[in-house]
Amino acid sequence: MLSVGVNGYGTIGKRVADAVVAQPDMELVGVAKTRPNYEAERAVANGYPLYAAIEERAEKFDAADIDLAGLVEELVEEADVMVDATPSGIGAENKSLYEEHDTPALYQGGEDADLVDTSFNARANFADAAGADRVRVVSCNTTGLSRLVAPLEEEYGIEKVRATLVRRGGDPAQTDRGPINDILPNPRTIPSHHGPDVQTIFPDLAIDTLGLKVPATLMHTHSINVSLTGDATADEVRELLESQTRTFVIPEHLDIDGAGKLKEFALDAGRPRGDLWENCIWGESISVEGDDLYLFQAIHQESDVVPENVDAIRAVAETADADESIETTNDALDMGL
Amino acid sequence: MLSVGVNGYGTIGKRVADAVVAQPDMELVGVAKTRPNYEAERAVANGYPLYAAIEERAEKFDAADIDLAGLVEELVEEADVMVDATPSGIGAENKSLYEEHDTPALYQGGEDADLVDTSFNARANFADAAGADRVRVVSCNTTGLSRLVAPLEEEYGIEKVRATLVRRGGDPAQTDRGPINDILPNPRTIPSHHGPDVQTIFPDLAIDTLGLKVPATLMHTHSINVSLTGDATADEVRELLESQTRTFVIPEHLDIDGAGKLKEFALDAGRPRGDLWENCIWGESISVEGDDLYLFQAIHQESDVVPENVDAIRAVAETADADESIETTNDALDMGL
Repeated sequence: MLSVGVNGYGTIGKRVADAVVAQPDMELVGVAKTRPNYEAERAVANGYPLYAAIEERAEKFDAADIDLAGLVEELVEEADVMVDATPSGIGAENKSLYEEHDTPALYQGGEDADLVDTSFNARANFADAAGADRVRVVSCNTTGLSRLVAPLEEEYGIEKVRATLVRRGGDPAQTDRGPINDILPNPRTIPSHHGPDVQTIFPDLAIDTLGLKVPATLMHTHSINVSLTGDATADEVRELLESQTRTFVIPEHLDIDGAGKLKEFALDAGRPRGDLWENCIWGESISVEGDDLYLFQAIHQESDVVPENVDAIRAVAETADADESIETTNDALDMGL
Repeated sequence: MLSVGVNGYGTIGKRVADAVVAQPDMELVGVAKTRPNYEAERAVANGYPLYAAIEERAEKFDAADIDLAGLVEELVEEADVMVDATPSGIGAENKSLYEEHDTPALYQGGEDADLVDTSFNARANFADAAGADRVRVVSCNTTGLSRLVAPLEEEYGIEKVRATLVRRGGDPAQTDRGPINDILPNPRTIPSHHGPDVQTIFPDLAIDTLGLKVPATLMHTHSINVSLTGDATADEVRELLESQTRTFVIPEHLDIDGAGKLKEFALDAGRPRGDLWENCIWGESISVEGDDLYLFQAIHQESDVVPENVDAIRAVAETADADESIETTNDALDMGL
């Protein structure tokens, strides 16, 4: 059994912790958190050993009547692999903590690519993380793009990717985010950082990305163009994407028009928190015009990196290859929709 | 003086009426409306002769104490040119009305292209409307795309346009529209109708468009890619677009991040209703990567077709050529920002 610790118990951390618990070959040795909020209370209720991420704030947990198992240093010492799911930039500050204890660590996509030995997407470059000390699981959007690029590149070859990312302004619980009633080019300069970020996974890929932010919280939506090198039909591309395990091609008969119905579909299916771990690609949108493939996909920013984190744990621990790990992760999460 | 009548006094009609009144060579002989609502009351307050668009409903105006000048048939008889600004599909129903009185008519972009002799954009194909009986002023989005395509096609040649249109869900006054908190691929099939609609202006243009709808009301935002035939730099393209009169390149120092600030800027400048008649292109977004030009532009769905309608009046009446008309319209509206 792999002993896994999770530092940072917010949107990503709590989901990764649950996913680790679900794996047959992993044990969650604990989670670390800075503040005794509603998520901390839930961690304890779940029976997850809870560690204070900042020693000076440990007494706040006492004041809130939330039991601590100790300080984060103890968790890092006990874990075979740490998953750092702290906010962007904090991961880099935690690097020395993991190194002091010789514990390999996974970081999230908000950290710089040069913090780590390799950036990671299970479908695209699992083997690059074998035995690494520092691995960065790329962001939700980069994960969503990488899952699309990998099979298309293998099957047809890609001349260029052009993607417009219509991003949700904030997550449902991020009550301090915007915009309200606006459509913001964000960043206003082109390309957005997403294209270069995808190139941390596919160094030779030509890709230009444009980002916007809108008043929605549920999912990002990507408007995708891929100029293919080889000939393809829309039906062939659809079959290819349907054959992947983490690209869900939404059947037309479901009559799903956006993220609201997608999330409701996931909740109805019993998915924890209504999570959509897969790229959700509208089947009727898959179109080929000459060399140009087009499609729309929705990306659940809170959860699509969760199975990737689980796979990255096995990659750094060298306990499975890509296919074995992805299958184990998917089965443990009961991923079919 | 050209006698102009406006049938339909809603979002577009009331703006066209005001713009006609501002022209030195036009007289507004009246406006027609189906219902005595707040806009009808304002028309009378402005001194615009108000006609009942539907005879059976004329008494409702009496009941609301709003004075009528007569029925729409009288307005059509009196006008040299009619501007039909009724809702999509109603224009086609009104065609026989205009033909019975031998009055040339302009229709809006919601009507089918085959209803008319020619679709119209002043910058792109003014001369095609010379002496026509039926002209269709293309929609806000098609107008915004055409204004961009025309100078780029002339200066560099265009291999292909790929555009993602992130559309406002409804206008500020359309209280029955959505979505709320969602990002809808709309239509979910590709291409959207906008590409073929641009081809009514540029029949040989290769263009693929993708549409979405989001919870915003102020303006549409376009994420644009144009693969150019000839070599260009971002600076050259910027200069080209700055030299056009209806493409406003937003200077970086204005610190305008979206439609909210754009509209506020227009209101502060004294623009009627805060209208933005021009394509609003973010200067810092204009980028060239290889043959690919990228940029973001915001399109004010309520007003960008207004100067185009004014120009189309002169085109069908054959009282000016494109350059003369555009200059007269712009001067009368005091268009510089």
